[in-house]
Order: sequence, then structure tokens, then C-alpha cells
Amino acid sequence: MAGGEFALIRRWFAGFGAGDDVLLGVGDDAAVLRIPEGQVLHASTDTLIAGRHFPIDTLPEDVGYRAVATAASDLAAMGAEPLGMTLALTLPGADELWLHGFSQGLAKAAKTFSLPLVGGDTTRGSLNITITVLGYTPAGRWLSREGASPGDQLYVSGTVGDAAMALAILSGDIAASQLPGIDEVEQLTRRFTHPEPRIALGAMLREVATSAIDLSDGLLGDAAHIANASGVELVIDSASLPLSEPLQAFGDRERALGWALTGGDDYELLFTLPEGVAPPPGCTRIGDVRTGHGVICDREPEQRGYDHFNY
Amino acid sequence: MAGGEFALIRRWFAGFGAGDDVLLGVGDDAAVLRIPEGQVLHASTDTLIAGRHFPIDTLPEDVGYRAVATAASDLAAMGAEPLGMTLALTLPGADELWLHGFSQGLAKAAKTFSLPLVGGDTTRGSLNITITVLGYTPAGRWLSREGASPGDQLYVSGTVGDAAMALAILSGDIAASQLPGIDEVEQLTRRFTHPEPRIALGAMLREVATSAIDLSDGLLGDAAHIANASGVELVIDSASLPLSEPLQAFGDRERALGWALTGGDDYELLFTLPEGVAPPPGCTRIGDVRTGHGVICDREPEQRGYDHFNY
Repeated sequence: MAGGEFALIRRWFAGFGAGDDVLLGVGDDAAVLRIPEGQVLHASTDTLIAGRHFPIDTLPEDVGYRAVATAASDLAAMGAEPLGMTLALTLPGADELWLHGFSQGLAKAAKTFSLPLVGGDTTRGSLNITITVLGYTPAGRWLSREGASPGDQLYVSGTVGDAAMALAILSGDIAASQLPGIDEVEQLTRRFTHPEPRIALGAMLREVATSAIDLSDGLLGDAAHIANASGVELVIDSASLPLSEPLQAFGDRERALGWALTGGDDYELLFTLPEGVAPPPGCTRIGDVRTGHGVICDREPEQRGYDHFNY
Repeated sequence: MAGGEFALIRRWFAGFGAGDDVLLGVGDDAAVLRIPEGQVLHASTDTLIAGRHFPIDTLPEDVGYRAVATAASDLAAMGAEPLGMTLALTLPGADELWLHGFSQGLAKAAKTFSLPLVGGDTTRGSLNITITVLGYTPAGRWLSREGASPGDQLYVSGTVGDAAMALAILSGDIAASQLPGIDEVEQLTRRFTHPEPRIALGAMLREVATSAIDLSDGLLGDAAHIANASGVELVIDSASLPLSEPLQAFGDRERALGWALTGGDDYELLFTLPEGVAPPPGCTRIGDVRTGHGVICDREPEQRGYDHFNY
């Protein structure tokens, strides 16, 4: 896009870049940011591809919002405070209508999650949205996937499986007779389009949790990341999974549990606490940490043949 | 790529992530980096698309090396010290041979420019390489495009136009009778595949230059960025442009000057110094800063009809 790249970025994304710690924003060779004293930098990069990470007919506003929210979720999983982000946007063409919607969603999320847009690149090609989020925590005080110990207890925030049920509804995979009401469908769809990264919860857990991860790939898969990184076995009790009303009311319980266990896109936090530490409000104990490796669950969702999930 | 994403990243990029300031590298929800005391963070994101930013038949080793080098050049333009980088790699498939070559080139550049690979994302889709580089400078002491003043003098490092001549040769745009010797072709091609970001020069200029930019879009276009950001007019004398031997020897002088003025991909630094400040070795004075706006040059390369370039 050569010169047009700058015009595009400036026109649509101007004004999302202000922040107390932004010393130099979009428009130079690099952004300059202040890291508060005594803090260390966190950085995470995520790519979203149409048709892979979201349905191709997703509204551009929702694409923009969700791109920021899911990237911010990685900061939440580290217990990090948001600092800013860069956006690398590859577009087949300068579709003004799409860019307008996308930028509105992006702006809303940038404001909601305190992530000013400080830089980026715009190029022509197949649609590709790559966001790098920057954050900080006190030195030596962040959450990782590594610290779970046998005897710890496993928790999850909020409810799980909602985004997966929403995608099943949107793709026509649910019989009309099994559909929930319109309000419930809207509530579920919003879980997919407007995930709520658990930034405040992550900051709170920084002081007490022994490990944490955000749920992007699915509960069992993400649990396996903690198990592998920590060198422990996680035991998950499917009966204890926190399900929202629509999932509880859904006629096929096996399928509802499948969404909860493998669905992905929930962006809740999965974390471990030492025995005796009370969980923050809105979090549910779903299992235990034992000596061993991998993840054990009493259910075998979908085509999976084993109850050990080692991704 | 779901689970495979982690296997891919780990297999090919493991071991490029170590560094004194890397507290937590690839494999968690975010990387954690130490910013030395008193320093501020610099961040820049660049995307490379095959067929747009490099010929589609470029060797994967060269693609990997060049991706890092061109991203690092943005740190050089700020006078920033390299800290680390993330890589968002979108690939049509897990082409092991391509990945092997790409990762070798990337590793070599990561080591050469002190940019450990601390995180990233790998997805399936059209080839897209997005690198975010992180660096630092002392607080309040970085180069930007904004500070040029009337009376300053305009300088460029190294030689300009080499990468453009290399691309003209590679694409068959030069008559056989005008081709330079094999050694010269190799030297020019290397300027394109292995650009040398001027990191040490940038750090030196941090103390004296009033503005700076790296040459990625072409000398006239990048000069216009300084002119616009600083609110000044830059006057460029084409006779003073530093040309390498092959460009000096090329039969068509107008064309050689066209490569030098508009070619792009040189990744030299263009900067302004107050009158009386001696330039670092290897830098050439090519013009002046005056009251006004835009860029004036005595040549009108290619199809450009004006001598004022306001990109």
C-alpha cells in the first residue's frame, strides 16, 4: 500500500493511541512507552485469520473488538497490567466500510481494556490481523503455566462452553427444537464476539495462584499446557464444571459438556491455588493437582479415545 | 494449526530466545523482559508479504534473515538498543523444508542483531510474516522524524540504490549488455537479502542528530516523512548521492539516480545534523533543511511530474 498505508492507519485509527505511558505513538519508526519503575515488560503476539479464528461473515465491529479482547486475555493470564498494543493489518483492499466497522470495534476494546494503539503496519494481501499486546507486572511477580504443585486445587473463572455453543448455533449445527430463546442466543453469541479478558482477576491472582492460563484452545487442551509446563497431573471432575443457564438447559448433556471441555474461545482463566486459599468470587473449583503428568477427566468428549490429553 | 502450532514453533525456533534481559521466553501466554533502569521501551511492527515485499522465489533463508534485519532497522532509526522480538508466522502449510531454511536465516539475524525470539504465533493461511521488535533508549533520548530545523544539514549513511538495482537485475529489467560482473551482482543482491540495520550508528546519532528515519520506501519518500513531521523543507542535491561502484559504472546515469532516489529497501539512515556537527564516518551530506514544506530535488525520477514530493 506504500504511501496509502500511512493515510489508512491515520484516518481510521487516529486517536486510539493516547495513554499516560505513551511517550510517542503511531507515526514514527517505533512507538515509545514508559514502563513504570520496578516493573518488567510482558509481550504477546496473536494472529486472527478469517474462516479459521472467526466465521468469515462476522461483523467487522466484532472482529475488531474480539481481536483486541483475545490478545488482552494473554496479559490477563500473566496477571499483567495493560500498556499498549500494535496492529499489523493485512487487507485484500482498502474496503472503507469494513475498515470503519473494524476500527470502531478496535477502538471500543482499546478503551475498555486500556490498550492504546501505539503502532502498526498495513499491507495488501489475504486478511490477517496480528496484534501484539504489551503489559507489565512487578519484577518477579507474574503468573505462568509452570508453578502448579501436587496438592493444589484447580479453578476456573466464569462459565465455560458458551462460545462453543454459540458457534454451533451460528453454523446451524443445532436442531431447531433444541435452540434456546432469542435472549439466550444473543447472550451466548456475545460470549464469542465480546470475550471479557479477566485482567482484574489476573492481577488479583498474581499474589496467590501457583499457575494460570487463559482458555483459548479449550479447557482440556489448556489444562494440558499447565500439566506439561508444571510437570503434574490435573484431574478434572466434569460434574463440577460451571455451565451457564443455556448450557444447563440444553437437552443433550453430553454435548454441553463437550463444549465446556473442548470448545475453546471462552477466555476465562484456569488456575491453581494452594489448598486452603479461598478462590476469588465467581470462580469454581473443578479439580485437583496430583503427582503425574497430563490431564485426567471422567468424560471422553467427542471422538477422543483417551482420558489423557497430552497436546 | 491448534496443537501443532506449539510443536512447530518449538521445533524450529527453540534456542533463539535466550538473552540477558529475557526473563521468560517462548511457551507461556506472554514473554517477560527486563527493561534496564532509566530506559524507555520502543516497539515496532512490520509485515512482509511474498510477492509484495520480496520476490516469491526468494530463498527461505534470505526471507528469514531479511525479515529480522528490516524490522531491526526501525530500532536503528530510533537510536534504540535491541531487546527482543516476536514472530507471527502465517503459512499455507507446514512446509518443513521452507521452515528449516527460514528458521536458519531468522536465527542468524536474531544473533547478529541481538534480538532473541521471545514469543509469537503460528497459523495456517496465506504466507504472512509479521515481526514486532522491542528495544530501549534512555528516557527522553531517542531519534524521531520530528526535530529537523531550518539550517540543519541532511545526511545519509552508506550508499543508496543498490537494493533497487539488484531487484531490477533479478527481475530481468536490465539488458544483458548493461549487466555488471558476477561479483557486483552478488554484492548488490546481498544488499537486498541481507540489509544491515544501522543499529550502532543510530545509537551514536541519538546524541547529536535532530531527526532520523530509515530508508525503506525510497529516499524521496522517506525524506518527505521527515519534512512533514518536522514541518520543514528538505533540499536534496542528486549529484551528492553516495552511489556504490556498480551504480556509478552503470551506463544509464538517470536510471541509477532513479534507483537511488526512489528505490527503497536500502535500510540506510537518513538524518539531520545541526550545522557544524561533524557526521559519523561513512555518512554523506546530500542536502539541506530550509523553511517550507516537502522535498525538493533537482531530478524528477521516473514518471514523477513534480519536484515536490508530499507522500
